[in-house]
Amino acid sequence: MNDSQLTSLLNKMTLHEKVGQLVQLATPFFKGASDQGQITGPMQDMGIGHDDIENTGSVLGASGAKETINIQKKHMEDHRLGLPLLFMSDIVHGFRTIFPVPLAIGCSWDLELAEKSASLAAKEAAVSGVHVTFAPMVDLSREPRWGRVMEATGEDTCLNSAFARSFVRGFQGDLQQDAYKVASCVKHFAAYGAPEGGRDYNTVDMSEWMLRESYLPAYKAALDEGCEMVMTAFNILNGIPSTGNKKLMRDLLRDEWNFDGVLISDWGAVKELIPHGVAENEKESAQKALEAGVDIEMMTSCYFKHVGSLVEEARLEESMIDEAVLRILRLKNKLGLFENPFREANEADEETFILAPEHRKAARELAAKSVVMLKNEEALPLQKNKKAALIGPFAANTDILGPWSWGGSAEDTVTLYTGMKQHLNADDLLVAKGSGIETGTEQQLREALQTASEAEVIVVGLGEHSDMSGEAGSRADIRLPEIQLELLKQLKSLGKPVIAVLFNGRPLDVRDIVHHADAVLEAWYPGTEGGNAIADILFGDVNPSGKLSMSFPFSVGQVPIYYNQFNTGRPKDAPDAQIRFVSQYLDIPNEALFPFGYGLSYNTYHYSNISLSTEQITPAEKLTVHVDVKNTGSMAGEEIVQLYIRDLVGEVVRPLKELKDFTKITLQPGEAKTVEFTITESQLRYYHPDLDYKSDPGEFEVFVGPNSRDVQARKFKLVNA
Amino acid sequence: MNDSQLTSLLNKMTLHEKVGQLVQLATPFFKGASDQGQITGPMQDMGIGHDDIENTGSVLGASGAKETINIQKKHMEDHRLGLPLLFMSDIVHGFRTIFPVPLAIGCSWDLELAEKSASLAAKEAAVSGVHVTFAPMVDLSREPRWGRVMEATGEDTCLNSAFARSFVRGFQGDLQQDAYKVASCVKHFAAYGAPEGGRDYNTVDMSEWMLRESYLPAYKAALDEGCEMVMTAFNILNGIPSTGNKKLMRDLLRDEWNFDGVLISDWGAVKELIPHGVAENEKESAQKALEAGVDIEMMTSCYFKHVGSLVEEARLEESMIDEAVLRILRLKNKLGLFENPFREANEADEETFILAPEHRKAARELAAKSVVMLKNEEALPLQKNKKAALIGPFAANTDILGPWSWGGSAEDTVTLYTGMKQHLNADDLLVAKGSGIETGTEQQLREALQTASEAEVIVVGLGEHSDMSGEAGSRADIRLPEIQLELLKQLKSLGKPVIAVLFNGRPLDVRDIVHHADAVLEAWYPGTEGGNAIADILFGDVNPSGKLSMSFPFSVGQVPIYYNQFNTGRPKDAPDAQIRFVSQYLDIPNEALFPFGYGLSYNTYHYSNISLSTEQITPAEKLTVHVDVKNTGSMAGEEIVQLYIRDLVGEVVRPLKELKDFTKITLQPGEAKTVEFTITESQLRYYHPDLDYKSDPGEFEVFVGPNSRDVQARKFKLVNA
Repeated sequence: MNDSQLTSLLNKMTLHEKVGQLVQLATPFFKGASDQGQITGPMQDMGIGHDDIENTGSVLGASGAKETINIQKKHMEDHRLGLPLLFMSDIVHGFRTIFPVPLAIGCSWDLELAEKSASLAAKEAAVSGVHVTFAPMVDLSREPRWGRVMEATGEDTCLNSAFARSFVRGFQGDLQQDAYKVASCVKHFAAYGAPEGGRDYNTVDMSEWMLRESYLPAYKAALDEGCEMVMTAFNILNGIPSTGNKKLMRDLLRDEWNFDGVLISDWGAVKELIPHGVAENEKESAQKALEAGVDIEMMTSCYFKHVGSLVEEARLEESMIDEAVLRILRLKNKLGLFENPFREANEADEETFILAPEHRKAARELAAKSVVMLKNEEALPLQKNKKAALIGPFAANTDILGPWSWGGSAEDTVTLYTGMKQHLNADDLLVAKGSGIETGTEQQLREALQTASEAEVIVVGLGEHSDMSGEAGSRADIRLPEIQLELLKQLKSLGKPVIAVLFNGRPLDVRDIVHHADAVLEAWYPGTEGGNAIADILFGDVNPSGKLSMSFPFSVGQVPIYYNQFNTGRPKDAPDAQIRFVSQYLDIPNEALFPFGYGLSYNTYHYSNISLSTEQITPAEKLTVHVDVKNTGSMAGEEIVQLYIRDLVGEVVRPLKELKDFTKITLQPGEAKTVEFTITESQLRYYHPDLDYKSDPGEFEVFVGPNSRDVQARKFKLVNA
Repeated sequence: MNDSQLTSLLNKMTLHEKVGQLVQLATPFFKGASDQGQITGPMQDMGIGHDDIENTGSVLGASGAKETINIQKKHMEDHRLGLPLLFMSDIVHGFRTIFPVPLAIGCSWDLELAEKSASLAAKEAAVSGVHVTFAPMVDLSREPRWGRVMEATGEDTCLNSAFARSFVRGFQGDLQQDAYKVASCVKHFAAYGAPEGGRDYNTVDMSEWMLRESYLPAYKAALDEGCEMVMTAFNILNGIPSTGNKKLMRDLLRDEWNFDGVLISDWGAVKELIPHGVAENEKESAQKALEAGVDIEMMTSCYFKHVGSLVEEARLEESMIDEAVLRILRLKNKLGLFENPFREANEADEETFILAPEHRKAARELAAKSVVMLKNEEALPLQKNKKAALIGPFAANTDILGPWSWGGSAEDTVTLYTGMKQHLNADDLLVAKGSGIETGTEQQLREALQTASEAEVIVVGLGEHSDMSGEAGSRADIRLPEIQLELLKQLKSLGKPVIAVLFNGRPLDVRDIVHHADAVLEAWYPGTEGGNAIADILFGDVNPSGKLSMSFPFSVGQVPIYYNQFNTGRPKDAPDAQIRFVSQYLDIPNEALFPFGYGLSYNTYHYSNISLSTEQITPAEKLTVHVDVKNTGSMAGEEIVQLYIRDLVGEVVRPLKELKDFTKITLQPGEAKTVEFTITESQLRYYHPDLDYKSDPGEFEVFVGPNSRDVQARKFKLVNA
């Protein structure tokens, strides 16, 4: 249809039919759903009638070609105008083939593979009848206590923005040309990643300067890539719940950024304006959310119950409803649903594509690239002829898909044990659990020690179960449970090399682990092919190359910690710094235990000959940075070369370092390559006191290195033309 | 002099002489100082010449009548126009007679006694030749990691504002009529109490809404009380260092609040604009600070070196310098220095007033009222006929004055041991150290256990030495050092009642202490008369009445924690709350271990018959709240009765509770009193999305109780007239 056809369709709709388009309900509400009628808890109290359901515009969480086709058919039969439903789901890091959690993907710094993972997830979802994914989640976070930190790519604006674009390209690409694509919905708008105290859904408060400089760019990047939808955040932002925040959505998102796609609330967030205390009742919630710009209300019924009377009472203009409905109709039209309401839903294609070898291969590759080696005292790689003991609650655990992997299943998941088995003779791999994740028995420990004593090397799989992070999975203590640390210590006391493999969804306080293990692999939640990927690294078939996309704090008392801090007026490391009166903790270092960008390889890489093409540029000119990177080890490997910039003097304070570019190179043993980065004026811009975004002439430092800490510096100047 | 005389004085001054007035140097720079010429470290590098010193306008840190008179005389002889110096010092919680640290004073909720303490400190300071104190420090803080949290009165806007006024009245009162007063300088402008990660001098970032609603009112309260001076903060606020923050100082402080007093930088903060990265060099620092409104540069020489040329080059207008100088001359004039440059400096008065019995008495009284009893399982009060063992690193420690008590001395300080001795027969008080503060020996522990085993009850003095808090005293771990916790556990294992008395400058994670002690007294740093005050409580001569002015976190992973939080959209305690998807930590409670306003007494107080005079008021009307409070115990006691309000629906989110009023009543055993509070519309105002400060019609809850948690609620409405 063209836009005028859509408008005439709109004009045929009753107000109630229009409002229906603005509502999203979960699958059990719909005829033809396998769980139809299984509506419990708060869903029961929604007061949704049959007539409402028949007019509802979109479905949450349905999948599977058979079911989605079934629901769509019955719905279109019941709908007076035969309008098709939009099927939306949280396809965050894979559909059935689960890729590593986004925080892990962030550690791969591999934009192409990230895009591919999204693309494969989209394909699996599309053939299952999904039209829209609630991804990417791009909430910048400096908060390891927060459970949803696993769901975005980390602490850096530049890296998150780059991944945001990759994911949107992967999921959505050219939606109208490629039926294997799903529309992308970037979330959570805005700044959901900065909850006070790390407690999910809690207060977010920051200056507009900070918001624009650090937190907003990744959302904007997704939209610049054409992302079709935006989801609101649960949190208040500076006193106003995001879901009722007119300044944030009408003024910034719609008017300033010109976003004309569909804006959807997070689950129940419209009605949550009541507990937030900015709406007295559901009617006010509906009014505030619509006025703020929320097109679709997810899983509460404020719109259904009250928009009609709000319009009748002239508290809302019907034209506002029309605009919202038209946006939804346009999205349905882009997806081709008016012509083919089932789009690519197809049982045969499900068989072909879901968990296809190519998908598993990509998952394995991305998982391996996401592993970050934090320590290696000559304990890795393992030799294939040595007897190994695999111990720990994650030794043979399928809970390695991570939160937001509802489409994945245990039986499809390759555990660490299964992965390691491929590399060793059957007799050479002993296994014992040692403890559970939060509790354990003396007998488990005894058995594990006995097993370990029979081996030459000990691999211990430790971590958090997937409910310890994810939504509402906030923790005040970010160490592993004591029982696991005790297991590790006991294993270490056997005097053999101990390799710890960590499965978790947040940066942890890993001091004890690093102390008691000879090697530490941060494997995150690696997904369906996790065990294979880790085994590939353990045995040296893959050389670890992941680098942290989020700082690992020294302890929870250091939070928030991030590499791109400001200098303060009393930096501890200044040449003339006093002993006492500097910005420091008395009891711990200021520095992260492992900084942003950090990760080891089985190789060493030597950086040399850093040079700038010029010491001075005008805004119209470019500067190139060259650096020679040599593989001084004995394996082929990938190295992520990082470029940071510091603006030495600004009208506001500027970070000590900001990631501006990076590249990944493959080097054979002994091989050297020259890496080239280009710096332009646009990378030197920042938000000024009046929130103007521009650069200033002056001096800059440019840093190149393997992580945010171990860099070499050069200087250049930006001058007026 | 009158203002036109001051202006003609100004007109006689050369530019260099004017600039001199804008500079403050430490005592060793001045002729006649006992430590004259002892200029080391950064002071050496300031490039200050004799001519500069002769023109300097004020002195930092000098005291003692003899010395200040001496310096003043020599200075006026050398100054071409004979201008007197202003003598300024940090008189924060006492001069020689040290009162409890401000955080402790906050726990007294005793505004009159707080005022008296400031008044006595002012008197001691005034006779020693001090003209200005850098107090009160009113930085609201929710950050126990921050070392300077001991220096203000806690986490609450209302309580901090009330204390701010009391302190200003006490220190400054009627400066022109009362020579025993010193001018007050409120600090640190602004929001220094919210450093990221609790690390001193670190980044502060918050919305303007939050700043105005929570952080600014206490500064404003001090100014409303006539406070003569304001000191800048070290921190950046939303990207701009406070000391170079024009928006904050010119626009808000000067233009909006009409502050026309003297604005001084904190120590070295003007030059610190360079490491902050907003000034390229000292010249730019000088320019930015002056443009932002900083009259006096403390302890760096940017003004001396560069203001002359900045004026010559027309980068600064001389009129700006003139205004700054005139403010300083006006303050000197208010202090009467042109008529009597020595003001009340007087050696005989020093003898009379310093550490006078009345001063010690007030210090003892305030210290006792500042003690917060956190737990008492029938262990207190002590019986005077029972043998007691006093153990611990604070058993006989004079380091109980706390940071910012440079005028106090160990020999004047009453230790816990000295205090307890007054209440027991000599044979009945055994003492042993048990451990040091951060380390200890096996022998110390053995001796302590032996000593304790001979007694019937054990009092153990634990805590942080005073360098563990205070400026630059940030800690990531807010538990007591392990050695002390071990000592406590060992003592507890003896099976006798154990009373822990804590000396510290921040809310601690006291879980282990509470677990292993039968009674816990939070004594803070109680000052010169600390030992007496605590003994008064231990033996029941004084009934504890202090209530926390800052929440005690469950653990450092819960920080920031404060009582006046917002509800969030998914409150954990809602009737229909889900188990998982609520705002919570998985591993600890959301609630503070001890909430704001909490403190036990040897009595119990029963609250009943809470009634409102009306259920509805217009903005012009008042509402009175009555509550009956009965002493149901067997001792006379004081109870702090607290009134909180919640605005149920706002245009922005409103706190779950906000302290709006409180009163302290004395009740004999069995006595009941009716407490009356008045509520007016002005208490219901808040900052709206557009930063308008006003109230809305609607429903409010009013809570009355003994702390912020255990309250009874009533409702009323505000309606339009």
